[in-house]
Amino acid sequence: MLKPLEIVNKMIHNDAFSKWLGIEILEVKKGYCKLQMKISKEMTNGFELAHGGICYSLADSALAFASNSNGKKALSIETSISHTKKVNINDTLVAETHEINLNNKTGIYSINILNQEQEKVAFFKGTVYISNKEWI
Amino acid sequence: MLKPLEIVNKMIHNDAFSKWLGIEILEVKKGYCKLQMKISKEMTNGFELAHGGICYSLADSALAFASNSNGKKALSIETSISHTKKVNINDTLVAETHEINLNNKTGIYSINILNQEQEKVAFFKGTVYISNKEWI
Amino acid sequence: MLKPLEIVNKMIHNDAFSKWLGIEILEVKKGYCKLQMKISKEMTNGFELAHGGICYSLADSALAFASNSNGKKALSIETSISHTKKVNINDTLVAETHEINLNNKTGIYSINILNQEQEKVAFFKGTVYISNKEWI
Amino acid sequence: MLKPLEIVNKMIHNDAFSKWLGIEILEVKKGYCKLQMKISKEMTNGFELAHGGICYSLADSALAFASNSNGKKALSIETSISHTKKVNINDTLVAETHEINLNNKTGIYSINILNQEQEKVAFFKGTVYISNKEWI
Repeated sequence: MLKPLEIVNKMIHNDAFSKWLGIEILEVKKGYCKLQMKISKEMTNGFELAHGGICYSLADSALAFASNSNGKKALSIETSISHTKKVNINDTLVAETHEINLNNKTGIYSINILNQEQEKVAFFKGTVYISNKEWI
Repeated sequence: MLKPLEIVNKMIHNDAFSKWLGIEILEVKKGYCKLQMKISKEMTNGFELAHGGICYSLADSALAFASNSNGKKALSIETSISHTKKVNINDTLVAETHEINLNNKTGIYSINILNQEQEKVAFFKGTVYISNKEWI
Repeated sequence: MLKPLEIVNKMIHNDAFSKWLGIEILEVKKGYCKLQMKISKEMTNGFELAHGGICYSLADSALAFASNSNGKKALSIETSISHTKKVNINDTLVAETHEINLNNKTGIYSINILNQEQEKVAFFKGTVYISNKEWI
Repeated sequence: MLKPLEIVNKMIHNDAFSKWLGIEILEVKKGYCKLQMKISKEMTNGFELAHGGICYSLADSALAFASNSNGKKALSIETSISHTKKVNINDTLVAETHEINLNNKTGIYSINILNQEQEKVAFFKGTVYISNKEWI
């Protein structure tokens, strides 16, 4: 079985959209990850605020990395997000996962996204299905 | 008060991320919209499948357009999405909104996303807060 | 394998809480059910309105019946509900399920709850995990 | 404006369903509460496990108490719950709220429900609309 960071490196290899977003991995361990990205002009809507899909994409990547880093291939079943503060151009966002529950078949994660002022900009909850397939 | 299509045109004017996604407006009316986009290589993850954030972004735009087209400025409070089928490069997705409930303060919308084979690839639910500010 | 109605009858046999709620089965078929219940004084909060848990309980039972009636034992993974209209004493509620998606491992259902005036009082979404165990 | 405990006492006065559930208030303060209840035979389904609606009802009451204890009347907009462990007859459950975000118009709360072994049996997220009406 691969180690958490090896799994995540395999996942983001050739991941074109994560590259476009500029997602950086700050930390990865079993069932956990911390990611960072910076908001560029291209990620904004007509009001110069980050599109809601940008925070979701960051959180969705964090969910995939954290849940797969347990060693078995995991697939998102259901996700939800609340956007709690406006995100502006040049903001730097950090997403940190928290494993709420893990059993044989499913895992539940909450993810907080903070900006550079440590203000919460989004709260995400994700549920994954855990397959029998190990990362090798 | 502006008409539904006028509101949406105002919203997507200068919307850099929607342009990057290549979102096209197929139909807009009071409390409703239908959007289309095509999956490009840049929207995929390391497995040549569309990143989960891509479908979310399409649905989130549809939520914003449908809810604001009622005439008052609306803001997303809570959204959830289930990804029900893999989305591949070159797939063409259509998102269609359905207004589940609307009152003075909040609106609830469900959104189905289908691919070119009419297969459901995602189901989205979104709740918005409706402000007093009219679109003018 | 048991038939849909046989499965549901097996499920509600000895179901003390459903009996307390007075849930009646109006219709059951593969992947679908329609339930009815009446709001009593005991189901209300301090404002003489039905407690939010009452509508949830009705919808959660409907989710269990609809998803298990496909023939394999199914278990709720994640559920959400929006309460869209006040529910009063003596209201008669009908919950009807809609199967949004079904694959080998998971199923997604939406459920509308209407009152006797055909007004929508709640919208529920539920995701279930489908086991390999058949109902026999 | 009333104090947190005064507000909650006003809310549960005459609350027939909370009485039926046997909900006890362990602690209340601004934006927070901790509730306890014991699972009786009448709260179970046909498998001698607590019906999903029981945990939801406990969490929904906790959401109402925590959000209203800030001083203004608050109304549930959207709630979700994941049931993570079976709940048996005679289990004693404790629900504790956590205020994720609060602004002028909306509040978001997560609620963990633990059993007497400190095992997490459910995770709940709720969003409320905050009115202008003070509790007096």
